[in-house]
Amino acid sequence: MKVGIFDSGVGGLTVLRAVRNRFPKIDIVYLGDTARVPYGNKSPQTVVRYSLECAKFLLDKGVEALVVACNTASSYAVPALRDYFGVPVIGVVEPGVEEALRLTEGKVGVIGTPATIRSGSYQEKLKEAGVEVFSKACPLFVPLVEEGLIEGDITRRVVDMYLKELKEAKIDTLILGCTHYPLLKREIQNYLKDVRIIDSSDAVARALEGIIENEGNSSTELFFTDRSQNLDFLIELILGKPLKPTILSEGVPKV
Amino acid sequence: MKVGIFDSGVGGLTVLRAVRNRFPKIDIVYLGDTARVPYGNKSPQTVVRYSLECAKFLLDKGVEALVVACNTASSYAVPALRDYFGVPVIGVVEPGVEEALRLTEGKVGVIGTPATIRSGSYQEKLKEAGVEVFSKACPLFVPLVEEGLIEGDITRRVVDMYLKELKEAKIDTLILGCTHYPLLKREIQNYLKDVRIIDSSDAVARALEGIIENEGNSSTELFFTDRSQNLDFLIELILGKPLKPTILSEGVPKV
Repeated sequence: MKVGIFDSGVGGLTVLRAVRNRFPKIDIVYLGDTARVPYGNKSPQTVVRYSLECAKFLLDKGVEALVVACNTASSYAVPALRDYFGVPVIGVVEPGVEEALRLTEGKVGVIGTPATIRSGSYQEKLKEAGVEVFSKACPLFVPLVEEGLIEGDITRRVVDMYLKELKEAKIDTLILGCTHYPLLKREIQNYLKDVRIIDSSDAVARALEGIIENEGNSSTELFFTDRSQNLDFLIELILGKPLKPTILSEGVPKV
Repeated sequence: MKVGIFDSGVGGLTVLRAVRNRFPKIDIVYLGDTARVPYGNKSPQTVVRYSLECAKFLLDKGVEALVVACNTASSYAVPALRDYFGVPVIGVVEPGVEEALRLTEGKVGVIGTPATIRSGSYQEKLKEAGVEVFSKACPLFVPLVEEGLIEGDITRRVVDMYLKELKEAKIDTLILGCTHYPLLKREIQNYLKDVRIIDSSDAVARALEGIIENEGNSSTELFFTDRSQNLDFLIELILGKPLKPTILSEGVPKV
């Protein structure tokens, strides 16, 4: 069974890792659109267009299911991807919401990029289930992580700036609606002491149970649209071993 | 005379404003590649490819000279643009360097995105002229500006984190090697009290003297590859009046 995973960049490798841990035998093709990263500051139309192009590339590689490892793309493009292509499509939003509903006592916080929060994708699904929802866009979190500032004074102040209102609202569960945010988990947990923090990569891997079979040759292929800075370092950091990526120096074809 | 200006996003509008002030009669076509912004985290190859595509789009609109209003694109793509297209090409690097050489007593600092600083474009030209150069990449400055944090506690701490070594080196002149940075000028000047700060948009406009003629119909056309957040607001903020942009929802054609 061959599964395709795409993200705007390298953050989605955390999802790849979780999927691999749960399905050691499947074949995985990963695409990171580093030539156009980030998606979180683009319009919904552009995010949908980019997502269709990424999906088409993976389907041309023969994948039989698609995992959208980017929260912004998951928020806007999952219905379009399901319409266009005849394979199962799993985004990160629904599994994260289900996990939150399993754990919450009634007050859930959601943080993400401006585009993810503006989409209302998490908020709608949580409200339908009858819980109180508090959401906040945290545009500085991704740059902080990419700058390596995953803890310390500046990061603590930015965490306080963004999460103060969620703390005051006394949320009991927080969804990290961006693949970069798990790297800030320690400072976030420190600030929101007793709050349950949900990292959706495990939830996504769990959601694939019943959709895909754990069989294949255990291969992993990595494609990126640009050789961005620290690419090899980040691959080894997240996956725990050096894997050579293929760079698509012309990007992915238009759909 | 029709002049084309391009940037990875909206920051280059500060250059447009400076060029317009100096040449009120020319016709200007501006392209902001908001569907792929930022360029500062992409590889040199990708920055060159994107720059050629932007330039081609402007030349197809009939411009007779090109201004590269993006520091990253200026650092990597100016020679390729000059090779490919038979029109004058002005980047922001050379005018900024000339202005610094005019003002400095011998110690110049340069700050910019990681890609701009890594390119060494400013450093090489300054060293050739025999001055001491101190450079620093400041990847959090653009996100801070885009988040509206142009002053205050967090910004002061980030300024201190990045500029401490330039302060200790006792630079006398600082080049702001990114079109976003002029918006942080107050905090930067506050931190580097007696340092001369160079914003290259005026230097670029001055460098156009002798290359273009101040004649035409005073028209301004704005194109963007994506309707990014706050686009209309930022246009009015920077240009001082509301101008309707045309959105190229398919991006610019490949070259």
